[in-house]
Amino acid sequence: MESTDTLQRRGLMFILSSPSGAGKTTVSRMLLRADPEIRLSVSVTTRPQRPGEVDGTDYIFADQPSFDQMVEGDHFLEWAHVFGHSYGTPKAQVKAGLREGHDFLFDIDWQGTQQLYQKLETDVVRVFLLPPSIDELRRRLTGRGTDSADVITARMERARAEISHWDGYDYVVVNDDIDECFAKVQEILHAERMKRARQTGLIGFVRGLMKD
Amino acid sequence: MESTDTLQRRGLMFILSSPSGAGKTTVSRMLLRADPEIRLSVSVTTRPQRPGEVDGTDYIFADQPSFDQMVEGDHFLEWAHVFGHSYGTPKAQVKAGLREGHDFLFDIDWQGTQQLYQKLETDVVRVFLLPPSIDELRRRLTGRGTDSADVITARMERARAEISHWDGYDYVVVNDDIDECFAKVQEILHAERMKRARQTGLIGFVRGLMKD
Repeated sequence: MESTDTLQRRGLMFILSSPSGAGKTTVSRMLLRADPEIRLSVSVTTRPQRPGEVDGTDYIFADQPSFDQMVEGDHFLEWAHVFGHSYGTPKAQVKAGLREGHDFLFDIDWQGTQQLYQKLETDVVRVFLLPPSIDELRRRLTGRGTDSADVITARMERARAEISHWDGYDYVVVNDDIDECFAKVQEILHAERMKRARQTGLIGFVRGLMKD
Repeated sequence: MESTDTLQRRGLMFILSSPSGAGKTTVSRMLLRADPEIRLSVSVTTRPQRPGEVDGTDYIFADQPSFDQMVEGDHFLEWAHVFGHSYGTPKAQVKAGLREGHDFLFDIDWQGTQQLYQKLETDVVRVFLLPPSIDELRRRLTGRGTDSADVITARMERARAEISHWDGYDYVVVNDDIDECFAKVQEILHAERMKRARQTGLIGFVRGLMKD
């Protein structure tokens, strides 16, 4: 007998955003390790490959003309130009994965979030992590105390600019404690998988219940 | 320092529906026992008080003219006439509770669900439980084998009529195993509490983060 766990479902695009220092990268890693159904979408980038990085796994490396051609051809779900390099999420990979019931994790900022939401609204789940306090955020951004006051001020400014977009998200979690925060993010992911509209296998399942 | 758990939030109306025999009553009891933040809304009814029932706790008992007056005055969020008696959910109690951050559990059918949704759409979370198979449903509805075939057939018909409304719900959970089903329902409730739009305390919290 089929259970909900084996019923076919459509995947979802799980977006985690936060200011730098609020735990986004840590929570993303924990989620990818704990949950075999979710994977990181592999971005295309024009930045040079670094030692240890695998083409096709960490990034898909491309030169600028190829990247621009993909933009022209509308092959990206979202793309951005950051610190002199271009980054984009290829559409084909994600669309095929969603149909097959895979979830994708996006560790992106509010601008990427808006682009994804405009393209695939019903598949997108937007989660924003907040630091527990401004003092704690400053402590996390100060790091090992080797940075100048100017550098820290600039980081705080960027963090505040990101925080100001908290209201463009479906869920908000304050990251007081990394384990609690992770547990909450998992509950959101699990609940979203139970949304009727994502459970494409339910139509056939209910048809079975209605027969005698 | 405030955490998300202490941030003010708006309550929600958590609707559990299922055909008889799919575990709605058991899951409701487990939820009320496990979670101090959710309570059962107390219905007004015209049916006679039974021994052991407490007026104001189990039901608010009323005569038919008083009930009809409440309907006239639009004092109910939803009401229905079932087997010769009237039942209704008083509006004032729920609306005040939601503002104070309490959640309400509704163990109601698809008709009550539609009425609630029309009145307070954004506060409503609709969860439907399905039996794992038609054979299992029949087994649960057959009970101790003391009922006639006609009675069982009639119960199966009512169950099927209820099941046919599964697509008017936000979440669907197949109840294979009561503990797993309960865990899933809890995840849905917890995730819904983290919805940005319900966390009314976030505006002040973020304002605090933006100050220096």
